[in-house]
Amino acid sequence: MNPLPEPRPRLVPRLRLKTGDTIALGPGKAQLLELIGQYHSISAAARALKMSYRRAWLLVDTMNSCFRQPLVLTSTGGSQGGGATLSAEGLKVLSLYRQYEKTVAECPELAELTAMLNDTPET
Amino acid sequence: MNPLPEPRPRLVPRLRLKTGDTIALGPGKAQLLELIGQYHSISAAARALKMSYRRAWLLVDTMNSCFRQPLVLTSTGGSQGGGATLSAEGLKVLSLYRQYEKTVAECPELAELTAMLNDTPET
Repeated sequence: MNPLPEPRPRLVPRLRLKTGDTIALGPGKAQLLELIGQYHSISAAARALKMSYRRAWLLVDTMNSCFRQPLVLTSTGGSQGGGATLSAEGLKVLSLYRQYEKTVAECPELAELTAMLNDTPET
Repeated sequence: MNPLPEPRPRLVPRLRLKTGDTIALGPGKAQLLELIGQYHSISAAARALKMSYRRAWLLVDTMNSCFRQPLVLTSTGGSQGGGATLSAEGLKVLSLYRQYEKTVAECPELAELTAMLNDTPET
């Protein structure tokens, strides 16, 4: 049996959206949003990302201040920091970011750059 | 006189292209390429970026190994590390990356996300 062919190296765009000096949204914040929507809890989302609750809370706070409407709504209380949910704006921002990732991944320039990549990049 | 209106916050995409775990190209490497093409010297480009020669050389080495053809061609010799020039592939990669930045900046999703930004983000 022949070994499977090596997969062609791919260029994976990593997208960070800055407003002024603040990163309003990036891969980490988008994933946090997604998990908060899934778990309805900042602390559960933080655990899933192996991130401290404090760090997750700070990321949420940054996102909430960058946008006109808060992306994450929290209810206070509870030893785990209370419940959390994505606002309508949070859902929309997450969906736009995911669509943005797809649009960027389909950029013709990305395909051209990928075709110029070495087949055997250093590991 | 009225003060000038505050500029609307803008989302500036920061694009990193990864192949495997290696960042093949990003804003810093693109700027380095541009300056090497301008100064025909890695050390002069490094100085302009307030970067050590060693760091600039390592970034060039990574780019050269990621692509099929080296992006930067060097001639050895000279106390400053010799001369350097962009190869045809280097010029093409730089031009594609700049075009890619423009294409991404014109994504409709980016405009929608920008419209959702707070007018007065924290500074």
